[in-house]
Amino acid sequence: MKKHNFSAGPSILPQEVFQKASEAVIDFNGSGLSILEISHRSKDFVAVIEEARALVKQLMNIGDDYEVLFLQGGASLQFAMLPYNLLSINGKASYLDTGTWASGAIKEAKKVGNVEVIASSKDKNYTYIPKNYTIDSSSDYFHCTSNNTIYGTQMKDFPETSVPIVCDMSSDIFSRKVDFSKFGLIYAGMQKNIGPAGATMVVLKKELLGKTGRGNIPTYFDYQAHISKESMLNTPPVFSIYTSLLNLQWLVRNGGIEAAEQRNRAKAYLLYEEIDRNPLFEGLCEKEDRSLMNVSFTITDETKKEAFDNAWKEAGINGLNGHRSVGGYRASLYNALPIESVQVLVDVMKSF
Amino acid sequence: MKKHNFSAGPSILPQEVFQKASEAVIDFNGSGLSILEISHRSKDFVAVIEEARALVKQLMNIGDDYEVLFLQGGASLQFAMLPYNLLSINGKASYLDTGTWASGAIKEAKKVGNVEVIASSKDKNYTYIPKNYTIDSSSDYFHCTSNNTIYGTQMKDFPETSVPIVCDMSSDIFSRKVDFSKFGLIYAGMQKNIGPAGATMVVLKKELLGKTGRGNIPTYFDYQAHISKESMLNTPPVFSIYTSLLNLQWLVRNGGIEAAEQRNRAKAYLLYEEIDRNPLFEGLCEKEDRSLMNVSFTITDETKKEAFDNAWKEAGINGLNGHRSVGGYRASLYNALPIESVQVLVDVMKSF
Repeated sequence: MKKHNFSAGPSILPQEVFQKASEAVIDFNGSGLSILEISHRSKDFVAVIEEARALVKQLMNIGDDYEVLFLQGGASLQFAMLPYNLLSINGKASYLDTGTWASGAIKEAKKVGNVEVIASSKDKNYTYIPKNYTIDSSSDYFHCTSNNTIYGTQMKDFPETSVPIVCDMSSDIFSRKVDFSKFGLIYAGMQKNIGPAGATMVVLKKELLGKTGRGNIPTYFDYQAHISKESMLNTPPVFSIYTSLLNLQWLVRNGGIEAAEQRNRAKAYLLYEEIDRNPLFEGLCEKEDRSLMNVSFTITDETKKEAFDNAWKEAGINGLNGHRSVGGYRASLYNALPIESVQVLVDVMKSF
Repeated sequence: MKKHNFSAGPSILPQEVFQKASEAVIDFNGSGLSILEISHRSKDFVAVIEEARALVKQLMNIGDDYEVLFLQGGASLQFAMLPYNLLSINGKASYLDTGTWASGAIKEAKKVGNVEVIASSKDKNYTYIPKNYTIDSSSDYFHCTSNNTIYGTQMKDFPETSVPIVCDMSSDIFSRKVDFSKFGLIYAGMQKNIGPAGATMVVLKKELLGKTGRGNIPTYFDYQAHISKESMLNTPPVFSIYTSLLNLQWLVRNGGIEAAEQRNRAKAYLLYEEIDRNPLFEGLCEKEDRSLMNVSFTITDETKKEAFDNAWKEAGINGLNGHRSVGGYRASLYNALPIESVQVLVDVMKSF
């Protein structure tokens, strides 16, 4: 039976990406070698990582004042790396607290320097995005999380500020048009809209580096060291980067970010419409802050929960349970999820 | 044409591992989902990571006083993590300098605390392993690199000491019998004898943790945090760990480490014998310190270099060039390389 994969991440990628990645595990580029056994310094892999970097820049419409890095350790490691590179010894950083991951970023930054949490939606269990906050123009940077995977909220726009904006876009990167040139640094665990688990993308404006007054930081923490080694300070995650390239090529072939956004809006509209129409279901977040990527909802009649759970599982749906800290349901509608899968879910919901 | 892959890493894995990994990219465990799109918290993947941990313990013959972690960032990140966890504020660590990677470990540890380099083979470009050094019993740990991939040297035995031994085994892990219970911490980039690039294994004695007096270190740097989260502090590199499990299963099925060592000795013997017999070639390292994994040699008559290079390439050999910092040739004979591939290389050498 065809599976409809609503997993929050690692998540669905296009079937043709799975096909090509599978083939490359046997024979990469007709080389007679598996993608898993080639040197990361081979001509063929250097071409892969260079094309991946170039496609990221093309999709983001950014210039050579930005660097694209493919690292490891997830967004979690970036929480710590970030302040070592951008938070000056006597400066401060402004953070927006919109959930578990934003809080994680705040916790790590506080170990490094002065951090000001300028707004939080913790009072309502992160079911909305704070607005009307002020970013102190003396801050070294402003940090935010564009999409909160666990709760299902998403920033619809970003503040106008002279302070560099640093953004964790792990769960909505490349899902909608964003003016990326307004950001100083963007990072993303790649296991949602970019590729499989195992790599982390960092896109940063070079001019922001070298200003903290911090010496002697661990080499792996130093963005400049990764830039100098072209993301090969250590052996990069070859297969994750190759598969990500296949997915970036798929995105470009299918109309780029603009077309992806249209498809994502159609999918989210279809599902939210049913949630709002059907009295058995209720959205978890403020309507204006609802995420296009992660749709969270609950069932209003707990006695029907078991029957509903059986029904969506029988329909071939996977990964619909909410995050363990929130409960309820969460349908993740990443780029590669076809609208047909959303229709299957909506049909199951309608039958109740 | 069949390829003979002597790449130094990422390196050859068994063909049946490539086959099964390739199939899992399309359909993992008959789930109807790719291994690339499943949740790292799914029952099926938790079973994978638990079995991988158990097989590592079984192969190492170590007990529950050890923890097995699968992290990211390569041995390079461990160079920094290590001292944050094991080097106490007023203590010191003793390091053996046997090459580029050992020096990298020393450089990172020096940023954290007091480091004593107790012996080095830098005087002869790391072509031998220092002996007769003394480890101060007051050291927090003694650090060494068991196999020096770039030069082709290998420690044949490890010192008897009361100080915990910390060892970078990236390029010879599971290639020979070692009494792993004599070590306090073993780490290895997994892209040689364990699996594809993208994961790092750390095996450590729990009792060594919590003694440094350092608070407030980045969470990702804290081994205890990774232990508490069972290697899922952040999204783990699912595919790398799964493929590593396939390779560990292959190793166990094929007689474990003892049988692998016999095969590796036979391969290395075959090649070193030809190097020593054939006046056109010369080994780069002291005979007693020669590595069973990475065999480095030069050609004594440079006028024959082009012909030799063409001949091994025509024979389907890949990855024979020496590291850029050393030059010459390097044949890496990792566990999965069949002796037939070594015979092909030796036959080419004999023809000169």
